Amino acid sequence: QKDDKEPVDKVIFFPDDTVSCRKYRNGICKDVNCRMSHDNTSFSQLITIFEQAKRSIDVCVFVITCQELANVLAEKQKRGLTVRIITDSEQEDCSGSQLYKFRAAGVRVRTDRTTFFMHHKFAIVDNSLLVNGSFNWTKQAVTGNFENLLITSNKGIIQQYQQEFNRLWEKFDPG
Amino acid sequence: QKDDKEPVDKVIFFPDDTVSCRKYRNGICKDVNCRMSHDNTSFSQLITIFEQAKRSIDVCVFVITCQELANVLAEKQKRGLTVRIITDSEQEDCSGSQLYKFRAAGVRVRTDRTTFFMHHKFAIVDNSLLVNGSFNWTKQAVTGNFENLLITSNKGIIQQYQQEFNRLWEKFDPG
Ligand SMILES: [Zn+2]
Ligand SMILES: [Zn+2]
Repeated sequence: QKDDKEPVDKVIFFPDDTVSCRKYRNGICKDVNCRMSHDNTSFSQLITIFEQAKRSIDVCVFVITCQELANVLAEKQKRGLTVRIITDSEQEDCSGSQLYKFRAAGVRVRTDRTTFFMHHKFAIVDNSLLVNGSFNWTKQAVTGNFENLLITSNKGIIQQYQQEFNRLWEKFDPG
Repeated sequence: QKDDKEPVDKVIFFPDDTVSCRKYRNGICKDVNCRMSHDNTSFSQLITIFEQAKRSIDVCVFVITCQELANVLAEKQKRGLTVRIITDSEQEDCSGSQLYKFRAAGVRVRTDRTTFFMHHKFAIVDNSLLVNGSFNWTKQAVTGNFENLLITSNKGIIQQYQQEFNRLWEKFDPG
């Protein structure tokens, strides 16, 4: 089935001018005074990628404090997908950290346990789509920073990122 | 000529185990006790990309404090290539900033002049090769962080990054 898909090579840039309306994304927003975006934004496109995951999501991102992104991942794990997260060890205690939410949902989380920064910002969906760029998973990155994400289905590239993810996953195994 | 080139889709990961030996890269290292790397490292591959530039290098990177990368860019400008740099406005005053070196070499530098973070980490060589990932241009990123850079000659992708570069270049024109 995977091989039937159209190849994806796409770029999204931030900041979004306006915060994406979650109610609208999820079906309907009845607030006639809603000031959030009911259009496609970079953030809504990013969220959609994870919402459409079918089997697995591997995330390797330095900072994860964005609640909406964390909620989607936790929900996916609850629905039976395999979600794995590697993040920087400083995220264990940082303000707004979403790691408690992941662990409560059964998502496995590993941190680098070194003095190095685990500075990656990539995710792999269903072992067939890579999301990679400058974007940390924070609210500020969405509407407050100039950022990019490259989204590709290039198999040769995905294989290398998947291999690096698996290598770090083993390396950071608390044992 | 450009169309004759082999397509490039390559990934390099950091940290390097060992600092790349500059003398060896530039031809010869006579130090029999040299403890730096005489092999290919991720850093030596990155430097080589810029050294092989023929016409232009557009850099859009949050932090630029790595002297070796800055030296290559300044040298390229002196040899007649067009080097343009966009970086975060906080880089104007930060410790180790290489902006003075760029300006002394005639490289045009623009900063975002906003409260937003200009958080990109990409560069475009000869309008035909993109380097993009988590990697800021610091010494720490080379041997002290887990980082990635995706290097691609995909024209559709490069066009979008070049367009964003040009848009930000105009936006940050001090006028
Ligand atoms: Zn709404
Ligand atoms: Zn040497």
